[in-house]
Amino acid sequence: MVYDAIYMPLNEVQKDVDEWARQFKSPYWKPHEILARLMEETGELAREVNHMHGPKKKKSTEETKKLSDEIGDIIFTLCCLANSHNINLDEAWKMVMDKCYGRDNERFDKK
Amino acid sequence: MVYDAIYMPLNEVQKDVDEWARQFKSPYWKPHEILARLMEETGELAREVNHMHGPKKKKSTEETKKLSDEIGDIIFTLCCLANSHNINLDEAWKMVMDKCYGRDNERFDKK
Amino acid sequence: MVYDAIYMPLNEVQKDVDEWARQFKSPYWKPHEILARLMEETGELAREVNHMHGPKKKKSTEETKKLSDEIGDIIFTLCCLANSHNINLDEAWKMVMDKCYGRDNERFDKK
Amino acid sequence: MVYDAIYMPLNEVQKDVDEWARQFKSPYWKPHEILARLMEETGELAREVNHMHGPKKKKSTEETKKLSDEIGDIIFTLCCLANSHNINLDEAWKMVMDKCYGRDNERFDKK
Repeated sequence: MVYDAIYMPLNEVQKDVDEWARQFKSPYWKPHEILARLMEETGELAREVNHMHGPKKKKSTEETKKLSDEIGDIIFTLCCLANSHNINLDEAWKMVMDKCYGRDNERFDKK
Repeated sequence: MVYDAIYMPLNEVQKDVDEWARQFKSPYWKPHEILARLMEETGELAREVNHMHGPKKKKSTEETKKLSDEIGDIIFTLCCLANSHNINLDEAWKMVMDKCYGRDNERFDKK
Repeated sequence: MVYDAIYMPLNEVQKDVDEWARQFKSPYWKPHEILARLMEETGELAREVNHMHGPKKKKSTEETKKLSDEIGDIIFTLCCLANSHNINLDEAWKMVMDKCYGRDNERFDKK
Repeated sequence: MVYDAIYMPLNEVQKDVDEWARQFKSPYWKPHEILARLMEETGELAREVNHMHGPKKKKSTEETKKLSDEIGDIIFTLCCLANSHNINLDEAWKMVMDKCYGRDNERFDKK
């Protein structure tokens, strides 16, 4: 993978959030409030994971749909936190990929 | 915002993760293991938010950088969960945006 | 505070949980499943904290009651995790108190 | 189990925390700050659960000790939140037990 500095997918996602948030008088909540929301959303994701893969194991298209929705909500919340701190998520992503192909790349057994 | 079905930013991000993960014999952990990792990563984000905005309030470029890194790590973990369930994050994102401009759009005071 | 080895409050709480759990064929879920439940419960607590102290600030007796219930649920979940690992929570508590009066005791401004 | 109103184990634990906290000028952080700390602590617990039961499965006395410490830290944090809201955790616990023996008691297969 060659990560192209010009191609910036997460910036697009952040802009979607910002465009929506800028309609309001107070576009973003305070950092701790966004964090609490993140906690709430990850809690809902956890419930779905337990529904699908936990004691009762209900695997269905509908369950996967709920999981997908919860992941979407978490990404939204992360974009709010990033936008309210002027964080560029494509730079964050570049760091993640650098870590993957650098520091962490020998941690697991390759094929 | 007109959300274009052809333009799929989060798919690109998912592909980055998949390309990396496919190097390994077991590309993805079990769902509950990924969830536990997510919990760990959100915990690290929470620590950074408390560092920046909590009792000691250390706001600096370096702190923002750490916050950015933690958000990147969470998005990576979410991509692992999505990929291991064949979830298309751009569809998830479309749902989020639909909710924003539909159900939730009258919840807050507009400008 | 002199912590008396004979007096063991958290053991009592653990026993309450164990007495209830032992009625069932599978008294405890798997550790990752309990962890996911913990995540769900802390998410519900986070929602209550945002309700009480977040953007909308609804402080009332009823809200405090909900917060109390969520804290109770989290302690229950922690007891399940502890019991299924034969962890003695009074020993855990002794460690916490030792840390408070040892390592961490000079961290904050005293009266 | 007969839950005795006079016997109040969690109050004792709360008092331990309060006695420690009252040494300081600002005994308790703000609710959202305590919540962020809770998130951090649950994240550390999640890491231990993944260490013990996740991809690498390192089960040992030392690992169980770490799990125990993390559970202790979470209970401490919950006591801070409860104390700063004048929440009586024994009443919270009574509610939990009532739920166990009432509403939820038929949810799982008995022996």
